[in-house]
Amino acid sequence: MSLHPPHFKPDHFRWAYDGDTGVATITLDRPEKKNPLTFDSYAELRDTFRDLVVTPDVRAIVITGSGGNFCSGGDVFEIIEPLTKMAMPELLAFTRMTGDLVRAMRACPQPIVAAVEGVAAGAGAILAMASDLRVAAPDAKTAFLFTRVGLAGADMGACAVLPRLIGHGRAADLLYTGRSMGAEEGRDWGFYQRLSDDPLAEATELATDIATGPAFAHAMTKRQLDMEFAVPIDTALEMEAQAQAICMQTNDFTRAFEAFANKRKPEFKGD
Amino acid sequence: MSLHPPHFKPDHFRWAYDGDTGVATITLDRPEKKNPLTFDSYAELRDTFRDLVVTPDVRAIVITGSGGNFCSGGDVFEIIEPLTKMAMPELLAFTRMTGDLVRAMRACPQPIVAAVEGVAAGAGAILAMASDLRVAAPDAKTAFLFTRVGLAGADMGACAVLPRLIGHGRAADLLYTGRSMGAEEGRDWGFYQRLSDDPLAEATELATDIATGPAFAHAMTKRQLDMEFAVPIDTALEMEAQAQAICMQTNDFTRAFEAFANKRKPEFKGD
Amino acid sequence: MSLHPPHFKPDHFRWAYDGDTGVATITLDRPEKKNPLTFDSYAELRDTFRDLVVTPDVRAIVITGSGGNFCSGGDVFEIIEPLTKMAMPELLAFTRMTGDLVRAMRACPQPIVAAVEGVAAGAGAILAMASDLRVAAPDAKTAFLFTRVGLAGADMGACAVLPRLIGHGRAADLLYTGRSMGAEEGRDWGFYQRLSDDPLAEATELATDIATGPAFAHAMTKRQLDMEFAVPIDTALEMEAQAQAICMQTNDFTRAFEAFANKRKPEFKGD
Repeated sequence: MSLHPPHFKPDHFRWAYDGDTGVATITLDRPEKKNPLTFDSYAELRDTFRDLVVTPDVRAIVITGSGGNFCSGGDVFEIIEPLTKMAMPELLAFTRMTGDLVRAMRACPQPIVAAVEGVAAGAGAILAMASDLRVAAPDAKTAFLFTRVGLAGADMGACAVLPRLIGHGRAADLLYTGRSMGAEEGRDWGFYQRLSDDPLAEATELATDIATGPAFAHAMTKRQLDMEFAVPIDTALEMEAQAQAICMQTNDFTRAFEAFANKRKPEFKGD
Repeated sequence: MSLHPPHFKPDHFRWAYDGDTGVATITLDRPEKKNPLTFDSYAELRDTFRDLVVTPDVRAIVITGSGGNFCSGGDVFEIIEPLTKMAMPELLAFTRMTGDLVRAMRACPQPIVAAVEGVAAGAGAILAMASDLRVAAPDAKTAFLFTRVGLAGADMGACAVLPRLIGHGRAADLLYTGRSMGAEEGRDWGFYQRLSDDPLAEATELATDIATGPAFAHAMTKRQLDMEFAVPIDTALEMEAQAQAICMQTNDFTRAFEAFANKRKPEFKGD
Repeated sequence: MSLHPPHFKPDHFRWAYDGDTGVATITLDRPEKKNPLTFDSYAELRDTFRDLVVTPDVRAIVITGSGGNFCSGGDVFEIIEPLTKMAMPELLAFTRMTGDLVRAMRACPQPIVAAVEGVAAGAGAILAMASDLRVAAPDAKTAFLFTRVGLAGADMGACAVLPRLIGHGRAADLLYTGRSMGAEEGRDWGFYQRLSDDPLAEATELATDIATGPAFAHAMTKRQLDMEFAVPIDTALEMEAQAQAICMQTNDFTRAFEAFANKRKPEFKGD
């Protein structure tokens, strides 16, 4: 099912779409609780990212929170308390749903830029981690604090993805201690790609830059970065030979050459 | 076979156990030779880490060396010289035993914190690498110097683990040249998680913090970080959905929620 | 087919061989166009690295460019334009050939040190990436700018190798935006192992250090670093147990012990 970007009205977060640039912005918006996730908002985010697979009008996504914080993760009384009372089948249904949100974020063709300020905790830290690029305000505090509620760092892909972003030792540090990673630390470690006093503006600029690029090729880059997580290097080379040969038959490629030959700026249309 | 933490008396290193915190400290203790490894100490370390799988009273481990150095690696006359005279079956038995030490360190459920000062060379550098977290004194010199004795950097997992800690280029630099990585360099690269003038105290504090956390969940984090070394991201997400659902049925999780709801500090018991 | 290092005269780049050190230097040499690659130079580079598998007299390789730049990548009129007119079979033949160049660089036993100044763009950035170690001048600008011509970042292994050098987030940044990575940034991220005002001299010194080391063991290190890209840690430990046991039967190992025992500098001969 495709959503209609100009008219999409989700129930559990805000949605804004800029038809000129193709950038859609998802804003978690319960600022009085630092934008926690609930069962319903998890599910609606998952469904939204799934629908984005067939929504080519959206060419890049920004995800952020309102009121000076990114996301406080699963709400203690709306999520943690019910989980303490569930039997295994329900628990597994829940952890699979949260994993499916990450899966949907990785499977949608649009690059996702997280704009983080204030608190990014638990599943909130995961939302930033599962994005393609991350911009932070100087006050951003990113904490994979599952250990603080007695849980494993193995949540929503953190043990696989976080080490690939910042290295295994630093990931172990964050996952065993639950401590906050500061903004500068996060940039020095490769978690954050940019710091900015206005991370939403910076993330939007970055997303706009991407959205005006070759959408088909960008989607291939996103797919390959994930697909080559765990393949031998020889396999990766053949995968990329095929992937890039496909991209060489797009009109974006031909137009880019023609623009270059005529000293013009290329125009990308995603076809 | 389970060892008895308060009464364990190894032959080739010192063992201390703090019953209040659950932290056990292994100290390599031949300071006059900078704490080298021998055939016997390799084997006893391997057996100790294997026994720790069934030693729940130990909840975190510190590994360090005495006399201002961590570990100078395989002793030249006690290990290198005999190796130059061995036939292939004995050589492979030796390299498998050293690999088994790393395997045992990774397989025991307790997070291991290395406290490194002075020399950490060859297999000594590997002991630090194979730990979960690393604290260094400013004078720490970590050298994967296998190349200096004509051997490959492919020793005890270095070609797999070191690139995941510090990146492939830096790992190649250390493994091809055998040069020392300094303490600050090691911290900037993600090898060391903390620098301290008293690395043993700092490592003990870090281990104590971990030991007072949810031991069952920590063991799951350790397992998953290793298991997800080389799996596709979709597989990792299902692995973590299962792992975390299991952790959600622990009493530690329920107690943590209750503590939070009552504004108390959670108490973790590992069950 | 083996090439003869002192007499090898390639058509599309310069070749220099130092018989005293065993270091061979490949210089891309069309400085008026910043040393672009062409169909012919791709093929000749690939064939050269393939031949180096059976050229033990070469013990380390430096790759560089002339005239203050490293390599501007595929030439716009000699490569990009023809590609825009090809059918799929020809395109795939091309992307497989470029992938085969990386494969050959990874498969040859000699460590490769890239000396980068000025522009390293597109396939030029890949040549640096596919080397084992990298030295940069302060003015080096490394850009994986495939996106600028409408293509994917999935080119010649970039989605597999670049994240392992600098982390997934930074790699995504470079691949989605096509922006230049500066020299200091590249060093801080682990892409560059050294900065130098004379990167060719520094790279040659590094290559010489490697060339005077244990060539057989170095080749094993190179092989294992690639082979362990995507294997479980237990598998890696057995792979290294076998690899290192093999190296322990070399004369280089025995001689190194004897040199050490006699307080001499070891001499490595690669046997």
